[in-house]
Amino acid sequence: MNYRITLQYDGSRYDGWQKQGNTANTIQGKLEALLEKLAGEPVEVHGAGRTDAGVHALGQTANFHLNTELPDSELLEYLNRYLPEDIAVIKLMRVPQRFHSRLNAVEKTYRYRIGTAGEKHVFERKYLYRIEEPLNVEAMRAAAGALVGTHDFMSFCANKRMKKSTSRSIYQIKIQELPGEIRMDVTGNGFLYHMVRILAGTLIEVGLGKRAPESMQEILDKKDRAAAGATAPAQGLTLVRVKYER
Amino acid sequence: MNYRITLQYDGSRYDGWQKQGNTANTIQGKLEALLEKLAGEPVEVHGAGRTDAGVHALGQTANFHLNTELPDSELLEYLNRYLPEDIAVIKLMRVPQRFHSRLNAVEKTYRYRIGTAGEKHVFERKYLYRIEEPLNVEAMRAAAGALVGTHDFMSFCANKRMKKSTSRSIYQIKIQELPGEIRMDVTGNGFLYHMVRILAGTLIEVGLGKRAPESMQEILDKKDRAAAGATAPAQGLTLVRVKYER
Repeated sequence: MNYRITLQYDGSRYDGWQKQGNTANTIQGKLEALLEKLAGEPVEVHGAGRTDAGVHALGQTANFHLNTELPDSELLEYLNRYLPEDIAVIKLMRVPQRFHSRLNAVEKTYRYRIGTAGEKHVFERKYLYRIEEPLNVEAMRAAAGALVGTHDFMSFCANKRMKKSTSRSIYQIKIQELPGEIRMDVTGNGFLYHMVRILAGTLIEVGLGKRAPESMQEILDKKDRAAAGATAPAQGLTLVRVKYER
Repeated sequence: MNYRITLQYDGSRYDGWQKQGNTANTIQGKLEALLEKLAGEPVEVHGAGRTDAGVHALGQTANFHLNTELPDSELLEYLNRYLPEDIAVIKLMRVPQRFHSRLNAVEKTYRYRIGTAGEKHVFERKYLYRIEEPLNVEAMRAAAGALVGTHDFMSFCANKRMKKSTSRSIYQIKIQELPGEIRMDVTGNGFLYHMVRILAGTLIEVGLGKRAPESMQEILDKKDRAAAGATAPAQGLTLVRVKYER
């Protein structure tokens, strides 16, 4: 049976989603260890987004194949009982054998949260990136508008040896001003390595007046990581949702 | 000049509000250290609620006397800049010389948050107490109703050597059912040592069916700590607000 799960996690104390060598301190590693115990054999868990160390999730999805007699509700309960308090499975469903959470995803939304000047974020401090200087949100929105669409995002990719296409489609960048917070929701068909964090870092530099909102096309054209802004810190980033075709 | 401040804090990593001997790891200790640096002499900070280790605040108040030339906005900024990320001063105002944050308080509201069965609380896990078994909220409300009013709350006081009056008035106990959470807001003119946590622990036992809702009067009448329920864990408790007369 192939199962699809939806996950929430506080990424603060993890080395990201993806298992790396002996490092068990990843979300994938925690899930696989539990499922292996249940199945009596190794189980591979495929995540839709390979979130970096420190990145959080409100709606990550993943899938795994498992032969079990357990009813779905008991499998869900088993996972939540033994997963740490900062990882939760909020949904579990059976999907066709060929379903793959990453390859079949048609849309993902990431959120980048900025804590604004003059406000402290006692209870949210681990989930946003605090910036002391005021940001020009209108300039950030203008720059974001120029990034929406299908482009070669090579300048926003931290993987220098990327051999596959670096073309991606961004459907929307929504920038909201909330009390003490500027929140960017970026929706697209897929994202390159560190792409959302470099987008956020570049838009922050626009907000600080260090870059012109009109310079985005130039950055895209250069196809050079050095042309874009800094990589914004992982802790401000959350994978919000992953969509599939019906 | 006498200043009144309103504070938020995540109490998770502190030894509570009150300075104890050499322990600087208290909210009061952090504030006094900063103010002493500014004033060049010791400054005493009086808190309205002496919250226990691990208890949080959304609206603690405190006052202190300070001779400074700083405008209020700069004093507020100074405190927030040097206080740790998990403590914030959200308001600062000048008050009459004789104002005392604890002695002049006329009403306090504490919140006790219970995480309910079958739900994980990835991002809120440090601010609530999770209970696996289902709770009968109607029974809890009935029991809470019997505790509202002016009573001798000696049975709900953890200080065995309490020499002063143990009579207190509870104005309201509001119990809300939220998604994945049961939230109790207790408002009164003042609270004895551990009183809100013992109230919460007792009402939880009612919710679990271990005590009858009708037994509250009996507990009050016994004037014996042993008659009431367990002390609920500190992490579920938050000081929400302190009121003063206009």
